[in-house]
Amino acid sequence: MNFASDNCAGAHPAIAAALAENARGFAPSYGASDLDRKVERRFNEIFGREVAVFFVGTGTAANALALTALNRPGGVTFCHRGAHVIADEGGAPEFFTGGGRLCPVDGELGRIDPQALEREIGRFPSSFVHTGQPMAVTITQATEAGTVYALDDIRAIARVCRRHGLPLHLDGARFANALVALDASPAEMTAEAGVDVVSFGATKNGCWCAEAVVFLDPERAREMPFIRKRAAQLFSKSRFIAAQFDAYFKDGLWLDIARHSNAMAARLAAHMAASQRLRLAWRPEANEVFAIMSRHDADDLAAKGAVFHPWDPSHGHHADLGTDEVLTRFVTSFATTETDVDRFGELIG
Amino acid sequence: MNFASDNCAGAHPAIAAALAENARGFAPSYGASDLDRKVERRFNEIFGREVAVFFVGTGTAANALALTALNRPGGVTFCHRGAHVIADEGGAPEFFTGGGRLCPVDGELGRIDPQALEREIGRFPSSFVHTGQPMAVTITQATEAGTVYALDDIRAIARVCRRHGLPLHLDGARFANALVALDASPAEMTAEAGVDVVSFGATKNGCWCAEAVVFLDPERAREMPFIRKRAAQLFSKSRFIAAQFDAYFKDGLWLDIARHSNAMAARLAAHMAASQRLRLAWRPEANEVFAIMSRHDADDLAAKGAVFHPWDPSHGHHADLGTDEVLTRFVTSFATTETDVDRFGELIG
Amino acid sequence: MNFASDNCAGAHPAIAAALAENARGFAPSYGASDLDRKVERRFNEIFGREVAVFFVGTGTAANALALTALNRPGGVTFCHRGAHVIADEGGAPEFFTGGGRLCPVDGELGRIDPQALEREIGRFPSSFVHTGQPMAVTITQATEAGTVYALDDIRAIARVCRRHGLPLHLDGARFANALVALDASPAEMTAEAGVDVVSFGATKNGCWCAEAVVFLDPERAREMPFIRKRAAQLFSKSRFIAAQFDAYFKDGLWLDIARHSNAMAARLAAHMAASQRLRLAWRPEANEVFAIMSRHDADDLAAKGAVFHPWDPSHGHHADLGTDEVLTRFVTSFATTETDVDRFGELIG
Amino acid sequence: MNFASDNCAGAHPAIAAALAENARGFAPSYGASDLDRKVERRFNEIFGREVAVFFVGTGTAANALALTALNRPGGVTFCHRGAHVIADEGGAPEFFTGGGRLCPVDGELGRIDPQALEREIGRFPSSFVHTGQPMAVTITQATEAGTVYALDDIRAIARVCRRHGLPLHLDGARFANALVALDASPAEMTAEAGVDVVSFGATKNGCWCAEAVVFLDPERAREMPFIRKRAAQLFSKSRFIAAQFDAYFKDGLWLDIARHSNAMAARLAAHMAASQRLRLAWRPEANEVFAIMSRHDADDLAAKGAVFHPWDPSHGHHADLGTDEVLTRFVTSFATTETDVDRFGELIG
Repeated sequence: MNFASDNCAGAHPAIAAALAENARGFAPSYGASDLDRKVERRFNEIFGREVAVFFVGTGTAANALALTALNRPGGVTFCHRGAHVIADEGGAPEFFTGGGRLCPVDGELGRIDPQALEREIGRFPSSFVHTGQPMAVTITQATEAGTVYALDDIRAIARVCRRHGLPLHLDGARFANALVALDASPAEMTAEAGVDVVSFGATKNGCWCAEAVVFLDPERAREMPFIRKRAAQLFSKSRFIAAQFDAYFKDGLWLDIARHSNAMAARLAAHMAASQRLRLAWRPEANEVFAIMSRHDADDLAAKGAVFHPWDPSHGHHADLGTDEVLTRFVTSFATTETDVDRFGELIG
Repeated sequence: MNFASDNCAGAHPAIAAALAENARGFAPSYGASDLDRKVERRFNEIFGREVAVFFVGTGTAANALALTALNRPGGVTFCHRGAHVIADEGGAPEFFTGGGRLCPVDGELGRIDPQALEREIGRFPSSFVHTGQPMAVTITQATEAGTVYALDDIRAIARVCRRHGLPLHLDGARFANALVALDASPAEMTAEAGVDVVSFGATKNGCWCAEAVVFLDPERAREMPFIRKRAAQLFSKSRFIAAQFDAYFKDGLWLDIARHSNAMAARLAAHMAASQRLRLAWRPEANEVFAIMSRHDADDLAAKGAVFHPWDPSHGHHADLGTDEVLTRFVTSFATTETDVDRFGELIG
Repeated sequence: MNFASDNCAGAHPAIAAALAENARGFAPSYGASDLDRKVERRFNEIFGREVAVFFVGTGTAANALALTALNRPGGVTFCHRGAHVIADEGGAPEFFTGGGRLCPVDGELGRIDPQALEREIGRFPSSFVHTGQPMAVTITQATEAGTVYALDDIRAIARVCRRHGLPLHLDGARFANALVALDASPAEMTAEAGVDVVSFGATKNGCWCAEAVVFLDPERAREMPFIRKRAAQLFSKSRFIAAQFDAYFKDGLWLDIARHSNAMAARLAAHMAASQRLRLAWRPEANEVFAIMSRHDADDLAAKGAVFHPWDPSHGHHADLGTDEVLTRFVTSFATTETDVDRFGELIG
Repeated sequence: MNFASDNCAGAHPAIAAALAENARGFAPSYGASDLDRKVERRFNEIFGREVAVFFVGTGTAANALALTALNRPGGVTFCHRGAHVIADEGGAPEFFTGGGRLCPVDGELGRIDPQALEREIGRFPSSFVHTGQPMAVTITQATEAGTVYALDDIRAIARVCRRHGLPLHLDGARFANALVALDASPAEMTAEAGVDVVSFGATKNGCWCAEAVVFLDPERAREMPFIRKRAAQLFSKSRFIAAQFDAYFKDGLWLDIARHSNAMAARLAAHMAASQRLRLAWRPEANEVFAIMSRHDADDLAAKGAVFHPWDPSHGHHADLGTDEVLTRFVTSFATTETDVDRFGELIG
């Protein structure tokens, strides 16, 4: 019953197999192999347009380098108060942008509120040199609260961006989970909704190590080859990432995995909704479930073999906690089984 | 007959198999798994002392972060004129150190000359603020010229370092190839010879993506967890690197691969030495062979299926080239076969 | 009636005269002149101990370089929500520290609340690499709200710092104004209260351009000569800064100017307290006075020749504003006259 | 007999007087005063076109920020081997550009050789990500060797720049000295010769602290306000720089000072040419004179009151030194008198 994180799972068997198969033979290094090229073309199909794709090794790298490509001196990037970029990346976005600032914005359940965004941007008048200058907006899809921006939500954020001439970045560490939750196409969830750059994550959704920065307008990627190389994110045996993506996209595996993970989360949430021992913090929309329980119950469930983490409620998640209660997070993945979910259901029944 | 680079090979079958086996099950992320811990302990055994080990994704990352851990404001790092850090890393060392400078030093066949090093360091008096301050020395083992520093060579460099209070870094992208060439232990080639920090590369020697920064004095690694995280080099499914290292070290696989690669290079060099069409530029000592041939022959051999690269002779390799001649590099790896080497031998016979 | 800012005044006549006198003759450059040395010794006397002093050109430079000297990878510096470093320095602290983060802390009237500080530091557990690591605390004295930390207030902040092993920096852009307000010695307000590094500002208090970073423990300044040079803040004709400081300290001129400015602020506040047209936002303690008035009155007073600025109430200054009201700031300096203050008093009478 | 450096002189009496006069009254801060605006317009007249001007505090800042405005990821700037940016700025250009590299280029007597430049640029193919990418070329006028690029020399460098799409920066720490040496206009020496950005120095030529970055195409300066602010180079009492420039330009004072300094250098050189004790290293063209003498004579002259510095002959100055000889530098300024020059002449006669 391991619900600690989708990055505690290993690799999906099909991904693992594809990687093993590709181990043979010689191929040009640094992204120049046929397989790299094939996967890059595959990204064009997936996004329904010519995009510029750059493989990198971690989600943090994808986010930090995407923002670096949008960089301006004294630049300020607006993100949700609890976003991964500001809460969990050890200062990488600030480091790679040479000191750019992340400005936290409020919003319910992990989603930036467009009015709050407007207000925060307004605090940085573009001609007033002392405060620095707005540079980009970044949203997380699915959010850190396990919720999903509806297409209209993204469009609303994009309208604020356009008004201020700011590019919109989407941190898609859980891109597939959001996509199947919305039943939307990648184009609908990104370019058509006003997104300019995507951190396209596959690691949490069944790969070992496969992340990409996708520029929906390749023109914005002009300096990216040098940005990536200088950032030590150009892999010599790049085809080990390409091979994972190749298997990931084959026959819609990526969407199948995401559907499975989301279904497991919904099943888990149903157990929680029916439980007397704990309660759902809010309704999950992707593959993360948040529950409120007493410390005693948390310890007890852990002792009985359930693995999950407490979560910081101060990130704007608006969970009403009793004095002795804790907010906890459960994450599902390709490796989560109905059996495990139901075993946990019995524990809390 | 692919001799383009050791990073054009895929992964050794044993590495590929181990990775596939480890794909199952759950494990703590970000380097906290049992396997990560086991491999870290393995590094202690290999280096014969308690070391601090940090997995990273690329050799460039290993070098850049090792130097960052040694960073000083206005810091100058001394390296060979043709070293990978200065010639092939897109400015990553300068970027990660916040603008540190790499100072090229001369030396025959890829090896820093200790007297030239002394002279260059002398140009940066430690109390003269205008020039910046010496910060570290880095050597490449095996070198970019396919040669190897003898233990005495390393000790001579280390003596210069000690005299100026500078730490000594060793870029071991081809650590194993040098080790078996010297028939030395890792401790002899590093700590006992005066090396303080090692970029320990396994990617070129049969892994997909397995690099580590090894601090022979763990005290120097105090800030490294934050340096690595901020650099986007802390991998969530870190065990995919650990699993490669685990298989790499098992039953001395890493040394067997290196011995094979070096033997293939020696065999190739023997063919060249006997050839009428081309000549060895200098005697290879690890898994890289440099040859001088006419442009016409280079084109002809390529047309017949041999893959290899021209090489820039200006990096201090001291190859005497005729007007119409080119310096070329041939690299061997686990994937190089006697058959291929001998086929090439026939071509140039 | 110019109350726009203390940096809108020029230079005090005694400072201007001293600078003119020093224009003659030759002297070693880059801080090596006798005058530079003399002023450095003067700082020792003023702080009652051996300090390390570094002249720089701007207050922003002083703050940014002081924090750089305390730098750690992924470092987080805690400051008041409305502090100059976070609100008005265009990202310089983040830039110079290579991407360090400023974490805003709440507190009444410009002063960090020690409990809020404790809480915020607690959000960055020192062993949890994902959030970054606490690096320093910085307070502004006098604050951006024109208030002053009492010695006990500083000691309370320092206790939190000590508990977490964090150095305490004091942004003394208005050091003298705070000092005379407290009737304390520099040692009492800094070293003895637990402050480790000071940005010692003289520009706002009658100089043209005279700022210094003062390390109360010179050991912390080891890398500072290189930090300053690399930051382009080592002035060739450094004696033009030294000459200003020399005159500034002579016969207590700096304290006299600060007393005058504070007295003018108190006089202005008294007029406001008696006014029917506007009200004091809170009691001033140094040389800045904040008033609340209607937009109409603000425009009217400006039309009648009073120069002052609106102020952002969102920086935690807790001014209760009516719908049509604005928060405004008035600053006094050596150049403020009783006549001007009283003329303004008549306007609002 | 102080010939140590032009930055060992103080300020010209007219500059000192103007500064003192401007100390009175109030003026908007941060470069918004009438005087700042007036001086900015004066720069337009001087350069014969609309330029973008940014005052900064040091020549190092001017160079580093000019290059930052031209910045590219992995960027490489080409400069003469002995240029101030690479030899004397403590790594500031590398720091401010976030790790940009300076690539030394050879050339006689401080001037970049256009063919050597072409060759070095050629080592960084723009599509080869591993080496980094060419970003800018910078020349020093007058050079560190006291020589001057003829207009044709600058045009030749500019042609190489244009061929590679690189902007050309001119470090004009001794702009006026070069200008009067060439009897050219600022436009002829810059925009019309192909220069894009100028570090316009006045400090060495009689000011206390007055430097400016001048963009001949204001479009290139778009991000400069934020670059300067973030670099802590936006001065609050900016008019103290403006006042110096105002006096500097008045009635051609700047050119008169430069003519005087150059004349003093020529007079000094004439004494040296006639001397039996030392010899001119090469013919001076601006206000720096290089002489070769025995160590014994150097000590003797110093003992008799002559102040001058030894100089590093390894910067490509091609001075042929005997075993016991030293290369020495003598610099003249507004403060150098005929009397002093002739006294020195007698010493070496």
